[in-house]
Amino acid sequence: MSVYLHDIPLNDARARLNGALEEAGRAGVLGIEDIPLDEKALGRVLAAPVWARISSPHYHAAAMDGFAVRAVETEGAMATAPLILTYGSQAEYVDTGDTLPGWADAVIPIENIEPLEESGELSTSARRPHAIRIRSAVTPWSHVRAMGEDMVATQLVLPAGHTLRPVDLGAIAGCGHDRVKVARRPRVAILPTGTELARVGEPVGPGDIIEYNSLVLAAQVKAWGGQATRFPITPDEFEQIRERARAAAHDHDLILINAGSSAGSEDFSARVVESLGDLLVHGVAVRPGHPVILGMIQPEKAGSPAAIPIIGVPGYPVSAALTGEIFVEPLLARWLGRQPERPPTLKAQLTRKITSPPGDDDYVRVAVGRVGERLLAAPLARGAGVITSLVRADGLALLPRGSQGMPAGAEVEVRLYRSPAEIEQTIFAIGSHDISLDVLAQFLAGHNRRLASANVGSLGGLVALRRGEAHLAGSHLLDPETGEYNLSYIHQYLPDTPVKVLALVGREQGLLVPKGNPKDIRSLEDLARPDVSFVNRQRGAGTRVLLDYHLGLKGIEASAIRGYQQEEYTHLAVAAAVASGRAGSGLGIAAAAQALDLDFVPLFDERYDLVIPVEYYQGQLLAPLFEVLQEPAFRQAVAQMPGYDVSVMGQLIAEID
Amino acid sequence: MSVYLHDIPLNDARARLNGALEEAGRAGVLGIEDIPLDEKALGRVLAAPVWARISSPHYHAAAMDGFAVRAVETEGAMATAPLILTYGSQAEYVDTGDTLPGWADAVIPIENIEPLEESGELSTSARRPHAIRIRSAVTPWSHVRAMGEDMVATQLVLPAGHTLRPVDLGAIAGCGHDRVKVARRPRVAILPTGTELARVGEPVGPGDIIEYNSLVLAAQVKAWGGQATRFPITPDEFEQIRERARAAAHDHDLILINAGSSAGSEDFSARVVESLGDLLVHGVAVRPGHPVILGMIQPEKAGSPAAIPIIGVPGYPVSAALTGEIFVEPLLARWLGRQPERPPTLKAQLTRKITSPPGDDDYVRVAVGRVGERLLAAPLARGAGVITSLVRADGLALLPRGSQGMPAGAEVEVRLYRSPAEIEQTIFAIGSHDISLDVLAQFLAGHNRRLASANVGSLGGLVALRRGEAHLAGSHLLDPETGEYNLSYIHQYLPDTPVKVLALVGREQGLLVPKGNPKDIRSLEDLARPDVSFVNRQRGAGTRVLLDYHLGLKGIEASAIRGYQQEEYTHLAVAAAVASGRAGSGLGIAAAAQALDLDFVPLFDERYDLVIPVEYYQGQLLAPLFEVLQEPAFRQAVAQMPGYDVSVMGQLIAEID
Repeated sequence: MSVYLHDIPLNDARARLNGALEEAGRAGVLGIEDIPLDEKALGRVLAAPVWARISSPHYHAAAMDGFAVRAVETEGAMATAPLILTYGSQAEYVDTGDTLPGWADAVIPIENIEPLEESGELSTSARRPHAIRIRSAVTPWSHVRAMGEDMVATQLVLPAGHTLRPVDLGAIAGCGHDRVKVARRPRVAILPTGTELARVGEPVGPGDIIEYNSLVLAAQVKAWGGQATRFPITPDEFEQIRERARAAAHDHDLILINAGSSAGSEDFSARVVESLGDLLVHGVAVRPGHPVILGMIQPEKAGSPAAIPIIGVPGYPVSAALTGEIFVEPLLARWLGRQPERPPTLKAQLTRKITSPPGDDDYVRVAVGRVGERLLAAPLARGAGVITSLVRADGLALLPRGSQGMPAGAEVEVRLYRSPAEIEQTIFAIGSHDISLDVLAQFLAGHNRRLASANVGSLGGLVALRRGEAHLAGSHLLDPETGEYNLSYIHQYLPDTPVKVLALVGREQGLLVPKGNPKDIRSLEDLARPDVSFVNRQRGAGTRVLLDYHLGLKGIEASAIRGYQQEEYTHLAVAAAVASGRAGSGLGIAAAAQALDLDFVPLFDERYDLVIPVEYYQGQLLAPLFEVLQEPAFRQAVAQMPGYDVSVMGQLIAEID
Repeated sequence: MSVYLHDIPLNDARARLNGALEEAGRAGVLGIEDIPLDEKALGRVLAAPVWARISSPHYHAAAMDGFAVRAVETEGAMATAPLILTYGSQAEYVDTGDTLPGWADAVIPIENIEPLEESGELSTSARRPHAIRIRSAVTPWSHVRAMGEDMVATQLVLPAGHTLRPVDLGAIAGCGHDRVKVARRPRVAILPTGTELARVGEPVGPGDIIEYNSLVLAAQVKAWGGQATRFPITPDEFEQIRERARAAAHDHDLILINAGSSAGSEDFSARVVESLGDLLVHGVAVRPGHPVILGMIQPEKAGSPAAIPIIGVPGYPVSAALTGEIFVEPLLARWLGRQPERPPTLKAQLTRKITSPPGDDDYVRVAVGRVGERLLAAPLARGAGVITSLVRADGLALLPRGSQGMPAGAEVEVRLYRSPAEIEQTIFAIGSHDISLDVLAQFLAGHNRRLASANVGSLGGLVALRRGEAHLAGSHLLDPETGEYNLSYIHQYLPDTPVKVLALVGREQGLLVPKGNPKDIRSLEDLARPDVSFVNRQRGAGTRVLLDYHLGLKGIEASAIRGYQQEEYTHLAVAAAVASGRAGSGLGIAAAAQALDLDFVPLFDERYDLVIPVEYYQGQLLAPLFEVLQEPAFRQAVAQMPGYDVSVMGQLIAEID
């Protein structure tokens, strides 16, 4: 079993790879293609500057429909003293774009002349009169597009390294080219390896992993201007992986081998690289991503090109995608002769503390939104296996090597995945989780709004509102003394924030139990049975408050419930715990039970509200949300989920100053 | 001849089109395709939400290489009181990603255990020892990726209307899909019309126009997610255009007809639309772009779909491209079910006054750069025929309907074509024009810098530096009293700005005359001959100063020179005027003569300097420029142009506090 060479800093890792590329003569553009100038040139990168071959216009062109004249012959014409120019010798009709006659040096627009008959009467022939009458003079070259107005032959039109956009194609054509020299697309081989991998679409059993990293990497390569070849899955067999890498080296510029880049018993990537060439780096101090391998391998074939780079990409999907961004994109940029991508950045304040290993460059996925005057970055799930954290991320906050983390409120620089304009359309919802929020997000997307929701429980949502970190909070906190929802908590937690409370839904809460309810669980009392296990919601969750309230009413001790300490953050997570056998029961909503094909034992009805500070209630950001609450299609979509009552939807429950 | 219906406001024009689309049942997604989930799905737009089919992980998975255990059996383990777990019944080796055995609920990483022989000695079998010794307890579910950690079956993964990125493909695959429902790509027919048009690559004579609008429009359609069909050029014949539009309507969703959308004698588009359906709009109050036509036409074929939209796109290339942005992109967005593109915007200060017709939404192309603390927007050429103004533009400043323009210094909102990061890498050079600046721009592009240069003459450059509107100015102003270049002018125009003056090149100035020098022009004196005409440079240009200086020395009156009042802004523009016969001579540099195959009569040697405020001289923005000045490849590229002397290049001429 090989061991990490070392987790070396990112910049050192890049420098080693770049040094090896220089040595192999592969540090720049890989080749030049001379391609026809058509739509397929879009997005290609110029391998040579474009100099104008001809001028544009390449002749003096009329810029208006009208009459070509000699400017000197119009001198003196005035409203009170019109001049008459004879057609043919002194004036000639031209359409826009026509060549100016050799003798002419200006154009008078047709609407500024009067066409005349030989008699001096107004003519009905607007384009071929006997003469024209004019009532003002023109200066030389007026209403004429002089030769070279746009481009003069030999001038620089576009520099090498430029990525071609639609208007660029027009300019290149306009200055006389019908072909264009672009950088050859780098060819990237992607080798998924792993005995446990299943192809997308194959049925999967326990222990099988759907192999989609090669899909993500191939799509990245394509988006960055390369050509990807996805190879079939290779099982964890040293010789097979080695043979495939060696074969791919013949006709590719880069090999990505995924995964097996760690130091486990079936991680062969490092040995494969060693056996075929030079292992430059094994382990980079970036997070997520650590077990990255960088190397150069030698195609063993007469006449083959020099050594080519190989990257061992870690297996966790977030690590794999970030390895693409950190190592593959800059490499492709170099080979295409363009600048690496520079996403927009902005500075935002962290909504919570992040700890970070001091030796690593730590890339933290964040949701970004503007709440009031503040731009906020809310850290998302940090697990390297959670690809949805990348899907939901608005950007990456980099915590550079040397820091041990950042406190809540600290300003971080975020590399954005979305445009700043999209960020401004983000509604930040922090609080309790309800499945109807997913449906709401879907409907809001059609109204140019993104709903970014963080599930921290009802109380956590009120705290976020107090800190000015959310536009609204979902909440269903039962007050044991009044039997009313939310209001007393709002008074306590938001004494200084005027809010409106809108009902979203009424819903059933109950026990989620395995299909067929094998333990015959019927009530809260059954949770205290020794043969029953339970999975709880986290402290501050409305469902937890509900549970504790009813346990208190019934005099059931928390300590009597096996699993009471085991906490999950959403209804679906509770349902998943029950579905997988991790727990025998949990408290949650009917829709979560249905989602994972569990049985549901209804116990309580409750109301789930949206708590919205008046400041945001009145703003334009949230306006579409109130529209959606009135849309019959939305109500219907929510009502068809089990246990939901939409009769209260949109009702104003309270205004609290 | 038809007349404009009216120039109606942009929003009204859009509303008419949208109303007609609603009526025709074509206001939303045109169709849904169920496509395989592979790289080709990249960039497609989801036509339905993606809900998770299976959870991810779909089983409890080891998150580390190590030993699966029951957490309860690790309780009490401490450094001083290790526990021993028997392999098989209490501990089992798992690789990362393996299924957790049914009886286990936690994983201890391999580096945290000691493998033991039956004897109690350390074992050499790391994966299959007799037992393991542990020195700390683990909590339930530690180092386990619980089922559903990433996605829980039935949850919303991505909303409809989302444009697929690489990581999205991974998430969709990870939750059990192998196909994805996306909006059908709209099919757009592009019909170039015009008897004067020549295909790209065809030889062109006077009056021929290279037809590249269809290329730009097709590339735009492609970039925005549609499929374009470029039709061959149709001559200006009503019946032919009508027939082609009618045929295209059968199998396309949108027809773009270019040009003939104005009201000239050969502008048939409006009549074609009227004859095939409804002319909704003829003339929109946008600039550039006015003569836009919007209509609906009816495919005359049994079973054909409802009426489809047709857009008459103006012929000038800038108008055509902006019509694409203003009308076609939002239409495609609607048909794809996505939001229209929202480019990043920023606020910048105009470097000069803009006048604007009050009735129009006026889109002004601008170069944008940061000079010191200020973001500046420098208006570019406004002619609708100057496509290079779009190529060079960093963005569009919108002067909304109702304003008559904006004064210099006014703040305008700019819709950016580039990322804000690129804007920060822009060197603003305002001043005299020299062809070596084109070469410099080319070399700087390889150093992650863009050189945006505005040609306003040497004096104009010094004025721009005084106003803080440029990082450097090219200047070659001869002081008649000292014979020295630039310094006295800098003292006069920049009394309060410390600058450094660097020599860029020495160069020859002389008379540009037609090939063969038919008028036998040999000296400045010849310019006063009655048979010789001249084209001048603008006031403030160094070349103009040079001319006036030598005319003064020789006692030649400006009024004796025919064409002295006719001004051009660059050497190449002067050369173009001579090449086209607009003038018989001009003063300029040898390279401009060579570019357009003119004869050159050398008269003077001069030095061309870069004047750089110390503030920017020391910053990192300009550092690559000084590197380029030392690059042998750059010096060689400049030296090979005729009349250039690079021996002075990069010399510090003066520091002026």
